[in-house]
Amino acid sequence: MPTYTDKIVDFVLNTNHGDIPPEALAEARRATFDCVGVTLAGAKDPAGQIPADWARSVSGGAGIATVWGHGFKTAPDHAAMVNGSAAHALDYDDVTWPLVGHPSVSLVPTTIALAEQLGSAGKDVLAAYALGFEVMTKIGKSIQPLHSLRARWHATGTIGSMGSCAAAGKLLGLDGDQLEMALGICSSMTSGHVGNFGTMTKPLHGGLAARNGIQAAQLAKLGFTAAKDCIGGHVKFNEVFAKDLPCDMEPYDELGTLWDLTEWGLAIKYHPCCISAHTGIDAAKLLREEEGVSLDDIEKIDIGVVEYTMDKLSYTAPTTGYQGKFSMQYTVARMIQDGRLYLNTFTDEAVNDPVIQDFMPKVQMYHDEAAEKAWSMGCRPADMHATLKDGRTVQKQVKISKGNKEVPLTDTELQDKFRDCASFVLKEAEIDQAIEMIEGIEGLNTVDSLAGVLGGIKLSQ
Amino acid sequence: MPTYTDKIVDFVLNTNHGDIPPEALAEARRATFDCVGVTLAGAKDPAGQIPADWARSVSGGAGIATVWGHGFKTAPDHAAMVNGSAAHALDYDDVTWPLVGHPSVSLVPTTIALAEQLGSAGKDVLAAYALGFEVMTKIGKSIQPLHSLRARWHATGTIGSMGSCAAAGKLLGLDGDQLEMALGICSSMTSGHVGNFGTMTKPLHGGLAARNGIQAAQLAKLGFTAAKDCIGGHVKFNEVFAKDLPCDMEPYDELGTLWDLTEWGLAIKYHPCCISAHTGIDAAKLLREEEGVSLDDIEKIDIGVVEYTMDKLSYTAPTTGYQGKFSMQYTVARMIQDGRLYLNTFTDEAVNDPVIQDFMPKVQMYHDEAAEKAWSMGCRPADMHATLKDGRTVQKQVKISKGNKEVPLTDTELQDKFRDCASFVLKEAEIDQAIEMIEGIEGLNTVDSLAGVLGGIKLSQ
Repeated sequence: MPTYTDKIVDFVLNTNHGDIPPEALAEARRATFDCVGVTLAGAKDPAGQIPADWARSVSGGAGIATVWGHGFKTAPDHAAMVNGSAAHALDYDDVTWPLVGHPSVSLVPTTIALAEQLGSAGKDVLAAYALGFEVMTKIGKSIQPLHSLRARWHATGTIGSMGSCAAAGKLLGLDGDQLEMALGICSSMTSGHVGNFGTMTKPLHGGLAARNGIQAAQLAKLGFTAAKDCIGGHVKFNEVFAKDLPCDMEPYDELGTLWDLTEWGLAIKYHPCCISAHTGIDAAKLLREEEGVSLDDIEKIDIGVVEYTMDKLSYTAPTTGYQGKFSMQYTVARMIQDGRLYLNTFTDEAVNDPVIQDFMPKVQMYHDEAAEKAWSMGCRPADMHATLKDGRTVQKQVKISKGNKEVPLTDTELQDKFRDCASFVLKEAEIDQAIEMIEGIEGLNTVDSLAGVLGGIKLSQ
Repeated sequence: MPTYTDKIVDFVLNTNHGDIPPEALAEARRATFDCVGVTLAGAKDPAGQIPADWARSVSGGAGIATVWGHGFKTAPDHAAMVNGSAAHALDYDDVTWPLVGHPSVSLVPTTIALAEQLGSAGKDVLAAYALGFEVMTKIGKSIQPLHSLRARWHATGTIGSMGSCAAAGKLLGLDGDQLEMALGICSSMTSGHVGNFGTMTKPLHGGLAARNGIQAAQLAKLGFTAAKDCIGGHVKFNEVFAKDLPCDMEPYDELGTLWDLTEWGLAIKYHPCCISAHTGIDAAKLLREEEGVSLDDIEKIDIGVVEYTMDKLSYTAPTTGYQGKFSMQYTVARMIQDGRLYLNTFTDEAVNDPVIQDFMPKVQMYHDEAAEKAWSMGCRPADMHATLKDGRTVQKQVKISKGNKEVPLTDTELQDKFRDCASFVLKEAEIDQAIEMIEGIEGLNTVDSLAGVLGGIKLSQ
């Protein structure tokens, strides 16, 4: 009888690029593209900048893997830790519902940093992403959402580490015993709790997951040992990380047969702000585009939402860019005014624009029972009622926000987001190069040239 | 009202070398000395060798902090991670009962690696050890032993990280806000579960604690943020790491008034094997020294012990060196034969010595109710009854094994142990230098020369 860890090991070992459904690989490529973009924007946020400064100060010489947007190389675990923190810095990165967390912020920094060290081909980088993603979602389905809600862990750090380890193990070519050991080692590294939400340590969880996965897999490759079957053995992952909570071990049987990468896919954020606001923002977009109204035309707006949304969007009169990310009033006003939310929508200056400040009191949220009943995973309805100055009342309802599998970003929208993000550290020509290379990643013999471009400024070491 | 984290921060910030009781500093110096010794021996064990090979492969150039016994320098977090794993590799390192874990394997690698980077004076290294130790024991008293017994965490990794972070923060000269942030960051890094006992990942927990403490403190120094009051705030350390278990917050009030470093001190291992055998071995030493008997004089030996000891010493007829570490029969026979157990007592060859193999069946353990009743913390009685061939019966009882605070190692014994351990990687003259420098550590302006000697072979980078 294979153990639960055997099931993971067999899946990772025996699944190669050619065995993965093309749609899953396409989703992995889109996720990689989007994650690289948000990382480049996050590189200059304090949660990306400070870890980069730290890594530069301790790297002490010629390095191996590139710190994106900062123009130097360092050890792969350090590079992945920095890039992972930058990736999650703006909370603009993807999520996937079976994980109840952010998969790409550990997977993409892990796969590209290790590929730089190993000289891996682009198609193997993508395959490693897909395998690591599936490991994350199976563990996630097994113990989420209680792992986060009750045991207070942040899955992006904890389960993220295990997925990063699987991806790293695949790229390193670990054998079955080594991969089992790698997962066991990683289970003793994995951490990150919800108490640090709202601080830079939340994004760091993405970086720590990448660090852990790489360190554990590299140690196992050299013969380091851990307990067998860390998932279902004598001290189970669930026992430590979901203490006394119910769990479901059946998802492990789906490995290799049900691909969460196509079944659930990724919710790629279209708006650079709290995902709880996204259905409201999408409703505002319909109001603007279908009715042709501007701020001047509107008397008031009422938006029915779920309780969770009301709780998360607590800034009804924001005065800073960061508060604006958690404000239905601000994001809706901006969408009607500008037709699109960009990263620079969330500067202090933009939030304090008098036109917007004047409008925000006209927007009210209320708790809507029907929305509450309809809420399930990515479906989180917003029911917007706009009263116009001409006497008309217009309703716009959005159940699933743009970016989810059911309403995916178009290739053009994905590229626009990438350009907006990457422009923080790359020049136009470099952005073009990066787009071309990631879109064609399956044809790259190595990722060296890609990593070089992502470095952003002339690599100094 | 100060929070629980404030109490730690105030203590660490406002306690300097001159404020620490001289007996506590003396204990810290002995702990540092002993830890360096066992680390040098562990450097060539796979649990020390493999991490060193790994760090060398990713360090990529001139480094900052020394990997002891391996002759190269790397980033401080990497160096401390390797040295910490080597320190715990042989399970020959110290323990302290309030922690229910191994304090020095993270503290010593942390303080010396950071001191190399910062140019810290020896007396500050020692003070940082003392402060980190107290932080560990207060957290330990608050949630142990349930943190390990029920929540299945290895305190050496989890609480060890927090103590390492406090020590690192002191050396880095963090201000109060930075130190609070450092502890918060570290609380999202700390991990290590008991499922990996009996594998190389157990010693790695010491190294990971050192890695975490250094990374968290360095990031906080650069302005990285975390939640305030990670100990008692809205998501408590206890809530995550001792879920639903009772805890006692009063020990935090002892910080700066009750020094566990003198109250409890360290149990420094005198024998390089499972601590459960230590009272039995000490009884055998009395038999040899007080009665002058040799193996040939003995008909049989019966030893009454606590149930925990019977469970841990499961090898009644060992055939490998590692099994010998968990055998009352082997360790008692060796003590009577040799008068001292050294590291090379635990080779396969030594265990298979025909004289010893012939004798071992004469040794029996039994469960003793009186011993069980008397067991408390470091007191774990062994009641030895030896029947001699001349017809006499001799009893030797030992309640607390040598190395505990009540029966400390003499300076000569500590030095003998150090020489035995250090000889695995250092030459005689280097051992003399190392002893002199650690004994006089409070007079060192920097630890550079000490670290250079501990490198062991000519530093190649």
